[in-house]
Formats: sequence, structure tokens, C-alpha cells
Amino acid sequence: MDYVDEGDRIVVRLDPGEQVLEELATVRDELDVENGFLTGIGAVDTVTLGHYDVDEQEYNEEEFTGQFEVTSFLGNVGPDKIHTHIQVATSEFESLGGHCSGARVSGTFEVVITTGETPLTHRLDEQTGLDVFDL
Amino acid sequence: MDYVDEGDRIVVRLDPGEQVLEELATVRDELDVENGFLTGIGAVDTVTLGHYDVDEQEYNEEEFTGQFEVTSFLGNVGPDKIHTHIQVATSEFESLGGHCSGARVSGTFEVVITTGETPLTHRLDEQTGLDVFDL
Amino acid sequence: MDYVDEGDRIVVRLDPGEQVLEELATVRDELDVENGFLTGIGAVDTVTLGHYDVDEQEYNEEEFTGQFEVTSFLGNVGPDKIHTHIQVATSEFESLGGHCSGARVSGTFEVVITTGETPLTHRLDEQTGLDVFDL
Repeated sequence: MDYVDEGDRIVVRLDPGEQVLEELATVRDELDVENGFLTGIGAVDTVTLGHYDVDEQEYNEEEFTGQFEVTSFLGNVGPDKIHTHIQVATSEFESLGGHCSGARVSGTFEVVITTGETPLTHRLDEQTGLDVFDL
Repeated sequence: MDYVDEGDRIVVRLDPGEQVLEELATVRDELDVENGFLTGIGAVDTVTLGHYDVDEQEYNEEEFTGQFEVTSFLGNVGPDKIHTHIQVATSEFESLGGHCSGARVSGTFEVVITTGETPLTHRLDEQTGLDVFDL
Repeated sequence: MDYVDEGDRIVVRLDPGEQVLEELATVRDELDVENGFLTGIGAVDTVTLGHYDVDEQEYNEEEFTGQFEVTSFLGNVGPDKIHTHIQVATSEFESLGGHCSGARVSGTFEVVITTGETPLTHRLDEQTGLDVFDL
């Protein structure tokens, strides 16, 4: 992993074998990011997708392995949470997507994080059981 | 719904039961946004997808209900139009997508709007029947 | 194609019949963009999707024709390479995605490119056979 801090945004390259969410947490911690919104593309060979059942208030997760292009990786970075969703494509160009609970880089992975001022802290929303932005 | 205006960008949290496009229009109107580009993720329980037939010059729309993760929500905000596309994932991690004609928040919905200077007004393009950027 | 340069970002409108990647290369060349990250939505009638096999180190490509909404178009612009991934939706709201090797606009295509300071040059990564960010 390598990154460049341009002040109001951070360009990140992740490398084969690296876990996307762990590396982004490292960037967050090293640069004290308290508010970031990110977009990314790349390729992964393992991805754990999550789906939240609001009624049951539980995440269902499933791990997929293969060779996937990541067509969209979107989310945000707070001091207490990194929240991302991911969309991947198979070798047949079919699509899978969901909450991103984990992803391991295969080819390369390119992310830009734009940073802001307001700390993106979270509070528990009792109605849904989710940690939501405490704006 | 709650938001924070950071000057060159706006962080928005939408809450269960809220209509995404209506709330974004409220943000636009309250902050006089004339040029915004947005990204978002979240969860919705109703989404109306649209598909435009350029030859026939008409939108076909279909409403889907269920528990959907929103893997990508992208678009832009002009003084006269909010234009967004949406990609959602089912509990089986299958994908649906299209023009976003409506979406109702179930869990939470997190959007960042980066704002610019040039008013994103639109003009009718006679060839396609679409309102396009009048740059 | 038309665009507005706002200094730290460029708003682009692509028009029917135009090739997305070629037009973006023109914008890049005219404005000397050395570092850009982009998001876009629109509609295309031809899209060539790519999938990279890391083991075999080769791209497989397939061209699709039809009427597609582009639900996400994400990527980046370097002086030596424009790298984008694309997700499209059919008239049945089904999804296809992958590396974007080509796309032709049908309706309209709206892109914002945010620019940065660090030239996004690339180097060949021998392990994967890919051109990666040389940060």
C-alpha cells in the first residue's frame, strides 16, 4: 500500500494480498482522518458481502472467491467507523453487490478519499439498530 | 434528515421512511445549491428504477419493494433538476439498477454533495428528448 | 462534448455518438490534467467490458450493444492512462459491469473530474502485469 496526502484528499494504491478495509484504517489512523468520503475501483479475489435485515436487525454475510473487477467502491471514513459498499463483476460480467465486510486485493485497487472538517462520528439509532452519522 | 454544510461540500444523513429525492431537493433549496455532484450509499425498501428508450423517447419505470442495500447512488444537482442513477443489491447480493425515479430509506442513507460554481442548468436536447447540461 | 473548467474540477457533458474514453482523453489533453478522479452517469448504446485474469495476465473483452443506463462510471485520469470501470443496466434493470474498454453515448453522459496535484503516472507491476499508480 502506498498513498499521497494532498491535504484535502488522499490518493491510495492498494496492492495484491492486502485487505482493503484494514489498509484504509491504517491510512485513516496515520493521517488522523475524521471525515472522508471515498470512491474506488480495482480487482479483488475475495469479497465478503453483507446485507442488513432492518426488521431482524442483523447482518447476513457471504464470502465470495474468484476473480472480480470492482466496478464501484463507495463509502465514508469516520474516526470510529469505515462504512463502504461494493459492487463487483465476474469474468462473465455479472454483478454482485452489498455492504462491504471485507475484500482482498488481487490486481490493484485505487482509492481517492476526499476529506472534510466535521468529524463523522456515529450514534446508535435504536429504531434500526444501525450506527448512523451523528451530525 | 440532517446535514452539515462545509462550504464546498454537504454531508447528508437521510432517515427511515424518507424519500431520497425529495429530501435532497430540500437540501438544495435550503442551501441554494446550483451545482452539486453527489455519491451515496445506504439502504432502501422501495426503489423506482427507470430506463430511457432513446428511440421511443420515453421512460419505462418499475417499482421494486424489498430490503435493498444501495451499492451506488451517483448523480448531480442543478437548480432545475436533480439527476441520479442507483444500483441496489438484494438479500441474495443480486443487482438491480437504473435511473432513480424514487427511493425510500429503510436503514440509513449517507450522501456527500460537492458543490461548484457553474449553475448546472439544463436545456432540452431535441435529438434525444432529454434535458441535458447547458454548459 | 462540452465542458467547464472550475479549476479544481471539470464538469463534462458528452453527447450522442461520442466515445466516452476518447472524449475524456481530449479533455485531459486540452486542460493538461495530470491527476483526476471522476464519477459519471449517463446512457450508452455500446459498451465494451473487460475482465482481467490476474493468473493469465490477460484481458478478456466483450462488446455489448443495446440501450443501457450507466449506473456508475468511476475511475481516474493520469497523464499516461485513463482507467475506468463501468456498471450498466438493461431495459429489464439487470446489471452488467467490468473494466471499461469503450462506451458510446446514446442519451447523454455527465461526468465530473476532480483534479489534484500529484501526477498520476504509472509503472508496470511485474507480479500482476498491470500498470499501477507510481505514487
